[in-house]
Amino acid sequence: MGKNLTKRSEDYSKWYNELVVKADLAENSAVRGCMVIKPYGYAIWEKMQAELDRMFKETGHENAYFPLFVPKSLFEAEEKNAEGFAKECAVVTHYRLKTDPDNEGKLIVDPDAKLQEELIVRPTSEAIIWSTFKGWIQSYRDLPLLINQWANVVRWEMRTRLFLRTSEFLWQEGHTAHTTKEEALAEADLMNNIYATFVENFLAVPVIKGLKTESERFAGADETFCIEALMQDGKALQAGTSHFLGQNFAKAFDVKFASKEGKQEYVWATSWGVSTRLMGALIMTHSDDQGLVLPPNLAPYQVVIVPIYKNQEQLDAISQVANEIVNDLRLHNVTVKFDNRDTHKPGWKFNEYELKGVPLRIGIGPKDLEKRTVELARRDTLTKEFVAKEDVVDTVVQLLKDIQENLYTKAKEYRDTHITEVQNFDEFKEILETKGGFISAHWDGTSETENKIKELTKATIRCIPLDNPKEDGKCVFSGAASTQRVLFAKAY
Amino acid sequence: MGKNLTKRSEDYSKWYNELVVKADLAENSAVRGCMVIKPYGYAIWEKMQAELDRMFKETGHENAYFPLFVPKSLFEAEEKNAEGFAKECAVVTHYRLKTDPDNEGKLIVDPDAKLQEELIVRPTSEAIIWSTFKGWIQSYRDLPLLINQWANVVRWEMRTRLFLRTSEFLWQEGHTAHTTKEEALAEADLMNNIYATFVENFLAVPVIKGLKTESERFAGADETFCIEALMQDGKALQAGTSHFLGQNFAKAFDVKFASKEGKQEYVWATSWGVSTRLMGALIMTHSDDQGLVLPPNLAPYQVVIVPIYKNQEQLDAISQVANEIVNDLRLHNVTVKFDNRDTHKPGWKFNEYELKGVPLRIGIGPKDLEKRTVELARRDTLTKEFVAKEDVVDTVVQLLKDIQENLYTKAKEYRDTHITEVQNFDEFKEILETKGGFISAHWDGTSETENKIKELTKATIRCIPLDNPKEDGKCVFSGAASTQRVLFAKAY
Repeated sequence: MGKNLTKRSEDYSKWYNELVVKADLAENSAVRGCMVIKPYGYAIWEKMQAELDRMFKETGHENAYFPLFVPKSLFEAEEKNAEGFAKECAVVTHYRLKTDPDNEGKLIVDPDAKLQEELIVRPTSEAIIWSTFKGWIQSYRDLPLLINQWANVVRWEMRTRLFLRTSEFLWQEGHTAHTTKEEALAEADLMNNIYATFVENFLAVPVIKGLKTESERFAGADETFCIEALMQDGKALQAGTSHFLGQNFAKAFDVKFASKEGKQEYVWATSWGVSTRLMGALIMTHSDDQGLVLPPNLAPYQVVIVPIYKNQEQLDAISQVANEIVNDLRLHNVTVKFDNRDTHKPGWKFNEYELKGVPLRIGIGPKDLEKRTVELARRDTLTKEFVAKEDVVDTVVQLLKDIQENLYTKAKEYRDTHITEVQNFDEFKEILETKGGFISAHWDGTSETENKIKELTKATIRCIPLDNPKEDGKCVFSGAASTQRVLFAKAY
Repeated sequence: MGKNLTKRSEDYSKWYNELVVKADLAENSAVRGCMVIKPYGYAIWEKMQAELDRMFKETGHENAYFPLFVPKSLFEAEEKNAEGFAKECAVVTHYRLKTDPDNEGKLIVDPDAKLQEELIVRPTSEAIIWSTFKGWIQSYRDLPLLINQWANVVRWEMRTRLFLRTSEFLWQEGHTAHTTKEEALAEADLMNNIYATFVENFLAVPVIKGLKTESERFAGADETFCIEALMQDGKALQAGTSHFLGQNFAKAFDVKFASKEGKQEYVWATSWGVSTRLMGALIMTHSDDQGLVLPPNLAPYQVVIVPIYKNQEQLDAISQVANEIVNDLRLHNVTVKFDNRDTHKPGWKFNEYELKGVPLRIGIGPKDLEKRTVELARRDTLTKEFVAKEDVVDTVVQLLKDIQENLYTKAKEYRDTHITEVQNFDEFKEILETKGGFISAHWDGTSETENKIKELTKATIRCIPLDNPKEDGKCVFSGAASTQRVLFAKAY
């Protein structure tokens, strides 16, 4: 039973695009560059949201909601930030349509309804939020201010790909204000650590925590923390970023606080976000030529039960056993679906759930009833075993843990064997083209060198790892002195 | 300790505007007509979302996400719907800004980045969703399709008020597709019932379920179910609507399915939504001149504990008792906040939590420690009692139930005594101006009469109640024959 899925070895990019659609995760919409997130894909995103939201609240953050639109005059207040996003902004210029006098039943933009000031659809919300924070912050007593927002944002992209790069995407953006530089830096680091913990424990995707170089930093930030993951095709993917914004936005929006000593000082800021891009990281890290592979911690349902029967009598007998298993599993907080639809054959269902990456599949047929067993199939290893009915719950609970762990271990092994130290630029280029992955190389610290390497190889500096050992060496490109290696890669 | 809150009797509208801001629920933003929902207000909205989401999923609905933008050509496909929203549409015409050559550091819209087709910021998503459903529906096996979306929408409003009428608001919109008219009608009715149950049980706001007249219907609907509530000032508020869309969108977007008999038929549709407007209903139904009054089922925290102390020793002793109570209450699923901040005095805190509508306040002072009691204050009745420490948990649990019930009962009493049957138009006008509330009157069933009454009195037909008894009579305005009374009111 074929899934007509392109093999990864044939065309990784095509495999990805097909998989996202066939596994019912998302599809392209009638709006250029915008996606529709389908129920199965959205259910995974909801699980991500729930856990992240819990982690944010546990660390004292509160949710709020700010306007979708940013007036142009506010948008341009922090110049670097504005410059960074100006080229990809959707702009609202009118607030009304009217009937087309020349074309019955059609509408045109009403030229009389032009806005005095254009509105930018938020590509990120620092501007609108800091213009609001000005009213919320007077004294050190109002700080720290720890706010998060779940929202949609728009960045007009010329080349889009489902989840990885879409003109509209969903995300959360944290925005915090602090009395000191140290506190803001610690917050930015904390949130980057929360992202790392979440991505490793829930997506089962190992990440490297690091700092961005100046040219890869968020527009308007003094420092950008990030987590970088490695996909199966050897390309890196930035999974989350957390920015120390210094006093840039406080100065642009004149946000000061009275210190304990009664002095007026500018506030220190951070912002941090992860988006539906995480769905891309999840898919590309674990899935295989048979389809999606989901870690149990994020699977919309962790177990599916498929009955194999020839007549109603058999289905009734199987259903009785299946329903017992469903109830027992639910008592153990396992999410389970019993697919007793008679519109589809067992073979079709096996195929479907393999494609959708359900971690465990339980098959029950007439012979299983006789032997009081069920067939248990693991999606990650594609292995099967027969399990005595009374052992099903314990086995499932243990296997779900094993699968979660196995996916992480496998991904980490791949990642660890794809960090290659190189000593010179020839080696750099060869590894990049043959093996891919992260290249650990000395760099002279200049944007000039960074840009030239990018021009020549398409590789960028993904990050300067936080736990980087100091090591004297020479820049792989310029030969100038260097004190540490940084990680290069081609990236999504 | 004054809250400087305008009294309801002085100026109800001003009272509302002040309360929303002072209770930290929301505020106006730098964007005309758009609001910022502050953490305390957003926490209430999150509780509404959680319960509604649970109810939707329990009835088989799944969440998904569709684009923010609707291309103009799709927007205008269902003509009535397009016509209904055309006058309040934010329109994106450009996708890039550039540096203003005449004004350093400023940005202008790049005239070279004009979109070929304008994009409408969704005022509602029928068009984009039905253009997507076309690809999802082929056969009766794909139906019913039961989808919900949590999203922001934009309707350009000239006169805005926080929560009640804002240019951008948050909502959920359900969109379903069915094989038969009967099934779609039953779905629209079901969702209206879910809204009614939710609003009555959680917001403690009694509602009347009814049908809209043709002129008050959703643009593009064949029938609109609604729930109507009554505010303290005698004005009605539409709290939720559920639309039977017939085959209008299926025809506009050519969405057909193969029936069991193999025939190609148009799909039947519903859509239904509630929004952050519910926050307005909640606030205006229960709150008083002291501030917000929240039903326990939606309060971000149901109980606040305020220590009353003169020195650290006293605070330590009080904290020990308070923490025991906190732990015990949490075990009983009561959300509780112990406010031990030393930056604010007890009197300030009492005032603050009264303003914010926390259902129960527990005060603990040195004398209470001696007597092993606490002081318990109810927000809804503003009454206080001393309770033995060992009875606190039981008393709190019982009082929270009582408060939830009391708020509903009080609101229902007000509502029930403000439905007035009138026999002629003079009575109609007099009741409307003196007593307000719903006016139950005979109506001849024509839009003409409805419009004239609206012109003359500003009252509209809020609904034809679903459980309306048939009764022969004469239209209050035209004198023509009528078979039932309908409910008129001035409305938000």
